[in-house]
Amino acid sequence: MTSAVTSMTAVDGSVSAPSGFRAAGISCGIKKSGASDLALIVSDRPASAAAVFTTNKAVAAPILVSRARLAASGGRARVVAINSGCANACTGPEGMRTAEAMADAAARAAGAEPAQALIASTGVIGVALNCDTVTAGIAAAVGALARDGGAAAARAIMTTDPFPKEAAVEVTSPSGRFRVGGIAKGSGMIEPLMATMLGVVTTDAAVPPALLQRALAAAVDVTFNAISVDGECSTNDCVFALANGESGVSITEANLDLLTGALRAVCEQLAVGIVRGGEGATKLVTIDVTGGRTDAAAKKAARAIANSPLVKTAVHGADPNWGRLVAVAGRAGVDFNLERARVQIGDVELFAGGRPFDERAPLASDHLEKAEVSLRVDLGTGGAGAARMWTCDLSADYVKINAEYRT
Amino acid sequence: MTSAVTSMTAVDGSVSAPSGFRAAGISCGIKKSGASDLALIVSDRPASAAAVFTTNKAVAAPILVSRARLAASGGRARVVAINSGCANACTGPEGMRTAEAMADAAARAAGAEPAQALIASTGVIGVALNCDTVTAGIAAAVGALARDGGAAAARAIMTTDPFPKEAAVEVTSPSGRFRVGGIAKGSGMIEPLMATMLGVVTTDAAVPPALLQRALAAAVDVTFNAISVDGECSTNDCVFALANGESGVSITEANLDLLTGALRAVCEQLAVGIVRGGEGATKLVTIDVTGGRTDAAAKKAARAIANSPLVKTAVHGADPNWGRLVAVAGRAGVDFNLERARVQIGDVELFAGGRPFDERAPLASDHLEKAEVSLRVDLGTGGAGAARMWTCDLSADYVKINAEYRT
Repeated sequence: MTSAVTSMTAVDGSVSAPSGFRAAGISCGIKKSGASDLALIVSDRPASAAAVFTTNKAVAAPILVSRARLAASGGRARVVAINSGCANACTGPEGMRTAEAMADAAARAAGAEPAQALIASTGVIGVALNCDTVTAGIAAAVGALARDGGAAAARAIMTTDPFPKEAAVEVTSPSGRFRVGGIAKGSGMIEPLMATMLGVVTTDAAVPPALLQRALAAAVDVTFNAISVDGECSTNDCVFALANGESGVSITEANLDLLTGALRAVCEQLAVGIVRGGEGATKLVTIDVTGGRTDAAAKKAARAIANSPLVKTAVHGADPNWGRLVAVAGRAGVDFNLERARVQIGDVELFAGGRPFDERAPLASDHLEKAEVSLRVDLGTGGAGAARMWTCDLSADYVKINAEYRT
Repeated sequence: MTSAVTSMTAVDGSVSAPSGFRAAGISCGIKKSGASDLALIVSDRPASAAAVFTTNKAVAAPILVSRARLAASGGRARVVAINSGCANACTGPEGMRTAEAMADAAARAAGAEPAQALIASTGVIGVALNCDTVTAGIAAAVGALARDGGAAAARAIMTTDPFPKEAAVEVTSPSGRFRVGGIAKGSGMIEPLMATMLGVVTTDAAVPPALLQRALAAAVDVTFNAISVDGECSTNDCVFALANGESGVSITEANLDLLTGALRAVCEQLAVGIVRGGEGATKLVTIDVTGGRTDAAAKKAARAIANSPLVKTAVHGADPNWGRLVAVAGRAGVDFNLERARVQIGDVELFAGGRPFDERAPLASDHLEKAEVSLRVDLGTGGAGAARMWTCDLSADYVKINAEYRT
């Protein structure tokens, strides 16, 4: 925050909480279950747009289309259309044609130029998305667009998510008052060398596209890119940001941290929601690594811990098996000093100075019984590098969900 | 093999199948269950010795001791003592004293110089190993040493392993006849950026220490280092090799491939046995990656597939979800061309030329119902890089075993 009179408060609504945005979520027939499967988010006027896309080299058609349109528009967009139930990935030239048609339908629905439409898809890889179904769905969704449609949009992008992810904040500052809101989805295939999920964040601040891109990337790095459910990275992941300026507040280099702070708050709430709703998850695990040579080294160790099946099953079983944390830190590929390392579960130090404190294990086990768990590892290098990651436990339900996903 | 008259046949026995080796496995009281927990392998005369140790930076005391003694002896050893039930890792100065005493006890038991004793420990990290128990156990094990003691030794090094891992071969060649035998253990925390398990391989060929080290490293690279159960790498992993020359066959640069071939055959059988007995495993999965820019790139992709929870759960559920293979190959951090990539499950091609062949899914599902499963991915770069890895499926039992390991 740039000044003492700046404040940020949570507000109701999500992607349509900022002024000048409407959203809808409907069922258009992609999901056989008849559940909600199409979301539309429209800005009343052209907005600055930014995006962070998957780093996966097997890129889905909707990602290719959105990337191209964002480049063609020079960072402007008026509409985002997202379907769930089918990823339209690995679907060849036909999949590309469907994705182009989907974006064209979204542009028509919003009365926008074709280049100002962004799309995303999520669901099973390698299954064809029915072009007529999705384009007719987009046309139908226009009638459902509403100022309070964010909640319906959040539900329409869900796949295996147990609950929708929504967040919104209002910033009051010397520059004026503006809002940032967002929705996200993601449950499995969640790991974040980029987004590994779908998200849309909106703001009614006025932000040049380049600044919006920079603020989004910074917020994603410490939120969506700091979570993991299973270490997987999907073909379809992306986060979009739209800024339409309706609030009258202008974001510049001088007050950029106002926007970055609000984006980070919204993205963190959405990202932590993804972990809470991770496939089979019963616990939210916050991992803090300190004592790294650099922040990057600390993040590498934190990521290894977040993806370790042995750590995640130990948390699931409330087993204070700190030795697994030491073993993972030791194999993470960063500097690690066993004699000076420290391991803490909750507030209970279990290993320090090269020795265990096993008599404290029952206290640590009590902590692990909670729904929110804290694991802290100091790598013992004496460096100031630190990082935080969020993950969930690994349960038998994760296996069941993923062994039976298609059947 | 160096010549057409060279042959290799499987023989009974394992670590004591080669001439001049005896082995024992007894219960000495480390495991509360009373199960077998101490193995002793002794060469009748000093042998050349080699070892491959864990790359984990949190190194257990027995690894530090074995590494130091191997250096002090200049690559000679007469005895290997291994306990299960306690890893003696993260146990501070007291753990180091216990490990030194354990090695001294092993040397006394074999009538060898202290530098010619190697030790290893496996079990829970961070728990003190009772020094009196293990040293008394080693003294007692001497009475059980036998030419056919390999099977007992293989059982004594087990932790969560469902069955012992043993193998032995006899090589007949123009240079003469010699044997290679081995035992190994490992079930969870199995991933092989080095051994990630314990193994002892013996031979009655005469091999200079430097050649033995080279042959062992080459064999480990394509066997123990090409398996994964859960992507974990332990603090205690090591493979020892002893060569005592009793067969009268001398291995030199000229006929080194005789030894490497036999070592590779024994290590592959042991390594695949580890995967078959992986925690919760119900299927053996062989992963072949081709079309990489280099062998190393292919291995990186194969390793990512071998460690992917989504691939492993799909195999568990016999779900021919080839899209997960594409997604993992795409995020593996190596060159990947979606348009030219190919995915095969068993003999069934499911994705090629950028398009799926979903009508073949039932055939692929039939293949995945088998106990031995083949997954093949061509990265589509046009390169000649190839690699093979072995892994197992991920079942709810893996979670149960590891959520309840200490309780």
